[in-house]
Amino acid sequence: MKNKELISELSDRLGMKSQEVTDMLDSFCSIVGTHLIENDIVSLPDFGHFEVKKKSDRISVNPSNGKRYLVPPKLVAVFKPATILKAKLKEMADNE
Amino acid sequence: MKNKELISELSDRLGMKSQEVTDMLDSFCSIVGTHLIENDIVSLPDFGHFEVKKKSDRISVNPSNGKRYLVPPKLVAVFKPATILKAKLKEMADNE
Repeated sequence: MKNKELISELSDRLGMKSQEVTDMLDSFCSIVGTHLIENDIVSLPDFGHFEVKKKSDRISVNPSNGKRYLVPPKLVAVFKPATILKAKLKEMADNE
Repeated sequence: MKNKELISELSDRLGMKSQEVTDMLDSFCSIVGTHLIENDIVSLPDFGHFEVKKKSDRISVNPSNGKRYLVPPKLVAVFKPATILKAKLKEMADNE
């Protein structure tokens, strides 16, 4: 689903103009991004929450020359789906 | 950041009533959830995208009795942060 489709589906459902929905999604993404960068957790009930996880450094191997090298630690943005979303996905998997 | 704080920050920024923002977030979560359950990818520019990944079955060990058992395959909702969000998190990690 492209961003345009999301915007039109949201504006239909909310009875709002596309520009209003676009502004809202931009603000939502910017606020969540800002809070993630402040190492905060952002939760959305019945959907999930966003958080930042620290991945520790690790040894990796360069496939082209077989040399080992250290991958530095990094921070990654992680989404943890809520139980209700997980349950729906489980149902989907069971029906496959 | 609790949902209430997200709603008040969004309504301040957008000059909208809390109820309008609440309805909008609910609709956003419901539309994204529905599309994930239809195995669709939902993208938000400069933020990231949501997709469903299939985790294959695997052998695990019950720590209480050491018995091995098969964990069935499952579908998981995954969030892939956009390059710009990853870059900001990298900057944050470098400043630590």
